[in-house]
Amino acid sequence: MAAEATPGLLYLPELPGPGSSLLLEPADARYVARVCRARVGERLEATDGRGHRADLRLVEVRKGVVAEVETVRSDPPGRRAWVLCGAPEGERADWLVEKLAELGVERFVPVDAARGRWRRAADRRARWERLAIAGLRQSRRSRLMALEEPLPLAQALDRVPGYSERWLAEATGSVTAAGTDPAVEVAVGLVGPSGGLDPQERQAALESAFQPMRLAGARLRTETAAMAWAVWWSLRGA
Amino acid sequence: MAAEATPGLLYLPELPGPGSSLLLEPADARYVARVCRARVGERLEATDGRGHRADLRLVEVRKGVVAEVETVRSDPPGRRAWVLCGAPEGERADWLVEKLAELGVERFVPVDAARGRWRRAADRRARWERLAIAGLRQSRRSRLMALEEPLPLAQALDRVPGYSERWLAEATGSVTAAGTDPAVEVAVGLVGPSGGLDPQERQAALESAFQPMRLAGARLRTETAAMAWAVWWSLRGA
Repeated sequence: MAAEATPGLLYLPELPGPGSSLLLEPADARYVARVCRARVGERLEATDGRGHRADLRLVEVRKGVVAEVETVRSDPPGRRAWVLCGAPEGERADWLVEKLAELGVERFVPVDAARGRWRRAADRRARWERLAIAGLRQSRRSRLMALEEPLPLAQALDRVPGYSERWLAEATGSVTAAGTDPAVEVAVGLVGPSGGLDPQERQAALESAFQPMRLAGARLRTETAAMAWAVWWSLRGA
Repeated sequence: MAAEATPGLLYLPELPGPGSSLLLEPADARYVARVCRARVGERLEATDGRGHRADLRLVEVRKGVVAEVETVRSDPPGRRAWVLCGAPEGERADWLVEKLAELGVERFVPVDAARGRWRRAADRRARWERLAIAGLRQSRRSRLMALEEPLPLAQALDRVPGYSERWLAEATGSVTAAGTDPAVEVAVGLVGPSGGLDPQERQAALESAFQPMRLAGARLRTETAAMAWAVWWSLRGA
């Protein structure tokens, strides 16, 4: 490409099949035509965020940007991780959402705990969706991180897939770098809110087979622990 | 303590010796008296950020907060890590500084690279110092992360201690979870700016014995890669 910048992956949730043409949304059109200065005939990559990846060819860039879908393929299912996370302080969840999406976490579940509730999750939802999309595009992944509504811990634990390995981030406990059991479908990391899980909640997590895991030699903030867990998970498969 | 909140570690760069009394600075005094509601006779912990940790006893909380130093001890030297980091986009360095301090990194060296320079590092310095102190207090460490001025890569490489292990974060390369050589003094992670190191810079790093290392299965942003490297280092010693 003669582009000024390497075009990032486009996120097109309504990706049509091969042979179709589509008019890009204004933000994507501006990005392709102005930022990347792409020209007719050049190629772009796009994903629907549900595991499909498409090659597009630009057929019009002046009056609106139109691309033709040349091929669509499915990415093989990859490793899967969920993060169940108590409320951090302030606006710290914003970057956490972005970082977890970059690291390839499949699902982010905000957990309302006795010592910390998600007060502004509804207000932040649109912003989190944008951040998750930005993380997807940055890392050129084809599966968009799912963002749940906040749930009480008991309900969040009920949602955890049956055949999963489950880790509870704590300041104590040991790092268990166990080999991945190929039958495990999902790795799940649970992090308490900034005030910590209360004893009953911790007990409920242990009874749901969560194993305590220490991520650093010192206390970490909620959002730091959640990201450190995702890095740990990511490193195991790198 | 009858405190409303568990008092965090105080950061007192001018920590006097045992038997001395000191008047807390207004921000610390407010924290101790108002936030924690601590009373005369209660104890606090403080550090000078240079490896010393002190037990203090409150002797006055009404007109100014005065504490007496009861004991001062030295923490044993721990594992050491430096992060050499190119400029990320926007304000992303702020949280990176906080997170690296929380994870116990010893020294943060901003690197000016051909494809990315630190433009506002001088303006941000006071803020970064506050964030490093907040990370120290949060994680209850006794050694404050050192913040260097931005340096060109060649100069930054010259500063790296001789007997160190050196890692270059890249999208390719392999994770080498080598056992720690006990003679290694410092682990050093090098991360390029958002535009990446240019070929000459990369070559200079390789010639300085930096080993390529992949931290995730996808491209990471500069600040994400720097934090992921620090988590990797932290996990090795957890």
